[in-house]
Amino acid sequence: MTNDALQAALTEYFAPWVQALKLGVESADADQVTLRLPVNDQLSRQGGIVCGQAMMAAADTAMALAVFARSGGFRPCTTVQLNSSFLKPLSGQDALVQASIVRAGKSIVFGEIDIRGATDGKSVCRTSTTYALL
Amino acid sequence: MTNDALQAALTEYFAPWVQALKLGVESADADQVTLRLPVNDQLSRQGGIVCGQAMMAAADTAMALAVFARSGGFRPCTTVQLNSSFLKPLSGQDALVQASIVRAGKSIVFGEIDIRGATDGKSVCRTSTTYALL
Amino acid sequence: MTNDALQAALTEYFAPWVQALKLGVESADADQVTLRLPVNDQLSRQGGIVCGQAMMAAADTAMALAVFARSGGFRPCTTVQLNSSFLKPLSGQDALVQASIVRAGKSIVFGEIDIRGATDGKSVCRTSTTYALL
Amino acid sequence: MTNDALQAALTEYFAPWVQALKLGVESADADQVTLRLPVNDQLSRQGGIVCGQAMMAAADTAMALAVFARSGGFRPCTTVQLNSSFLKPLSGQDALVQASIVRAGKSIVFGEIDIRGATDGKSVCRTSTTYALL
Repeated sequence: MTNDALQAALTEYFAPWVQALKLGVESADADQVTLRLPVNDQLSRQGGIVCGQAMMAAADTAMALAVFARSGGFRPCTTVQLNSSFLKPLSGQDALVQASIVRAGKSIVFGEIDIRGATDGKSVCRTSTTYALL
Repeated sequence: MTNDALQAALTEYFAPWVQALKLGVESADADQVTLRLPVNDQLSRQGGIVCGQAMMAAADTAMALAVFARSGGFRPCTTVQLNSSFLKPLSGQDALVQASIVRAGKSIVFGEIDIRGATDGKSVCRTSTTYALL
Repeated sequence: MTNDALQAALTEYFAPWVQALKLGVESADADQVTLRLPVNDQLSRQGGIVCGQAMMAAADTAMALAVFARSGGFRPCTTVQLNSSFLKPLSGQDALVQASIVRAGKSIVFGEIDIRGATDGKSVCRTSTTYALL
Repeated sequence: MTNDALQAALTEYFAPWVQALKLGVESADADQVTLRLPVNDQLSRQGGIVCGQAMMAAADTAMALAVFARSGGFRPCTTVQLNSSFLKPLSGQDALVQASIVRAGKSIVFGEIDIRGATDGKSVCRTSTTYALL
């Protein structure tokens, strides 16, 4: 799928509240999708730190798109499990959200998502997830 | 803390994008806080199913409030880990998000969050989490 | 399944290294299985604390037995995910390992395992897990 | 720390039941430790598949050694959380268990453990964990 097709899927298949994150597709291939999470006041709590809720939502969304990219188009699927570790705070820079498919079985897909500062490249949140293909 | 004080904390300490969930404090004591997540089109993806991103965000928010309630007021803290299992879809009803403190140490707090349909009472998402007190 | 049948399954279907835990079936029904983990020097690290490795192994084993109990006999299944939180140390007492089925779908089973001190009843380890039925 | 010093720590600081895994130190530096898990009948369940319990135990043990290696010697620490995903079965070959420190703070260390077949190099189990330094 092209970046444009994945960007269109973001509008078509996700809740408006998720779209309010204004995620942008940076790159994609059959094994990974990278989104940009633009940092702004709407996503920040006290002290200008990006809220963890936005990072988990971006991680889950990036993984769904990685499943679509692997499938060559929209694929009904559902998150079974999503586990996030918050390594350090993020502030003052966008985040790059890279979702990688670690293993894709017939009915279960394992993925990992790494969220890094777009400027300094440092990992701030690591997520592992299991998806069920429907 | 009273329900009103916790509701005020929701406005004061959380990002505007999280406030857009319109979470309401239903009940609280020193061991647990229950929030209502009103279901609406903004939170729904295809087929009217509440998106998992909203459930994770509500779980994390409820746990932060449970830490405040335990502390008797705002307490600087940060999510270290948050693990969510999505048991079944939720649609056509609000969700009740109950965050319970399982164990509170000096620097680490363990919590569990159960999200149920407000009408049928069925569990749809179970989350376990670790918070660090700062 | 009777306690005796589940105890026999422990010998038949698990690796000898897991059997060395000497787990004993305490109770079982269609929704939960409780095992006793006898505490001894083999399982203890420095200071007489039961090692976390034994608790994770007991949790996974108890959940497999809960799937068998629900199915009325041996059922091919595999652990997809297992997440453990270690709340506090355990020493000087056996552990009771209670595995509960939270939701059983056609191909995926969600479970939670609570490990408590057999004497003081205090929770020491909480685990959530996802199993795939084969 | 040298491989020999880490191997000695395996004997000194871990429960006899964990030592029965016969883990061997393959390599180590300040950011990672790799252990070999020799596959044998003691660790195998039906069909010669290495039991998941052994993989979780090896992952936790490798991470503790990675914390020691980073600290330059034994360091009191405890597992707070350990989350494992089981990607595919392992049989007929040893496993290599690589524990990497993702971020080390003053009191909390985040790690990830990748378990691969020693012969085919394929990932069979991925684990993320949080340790508390005491």
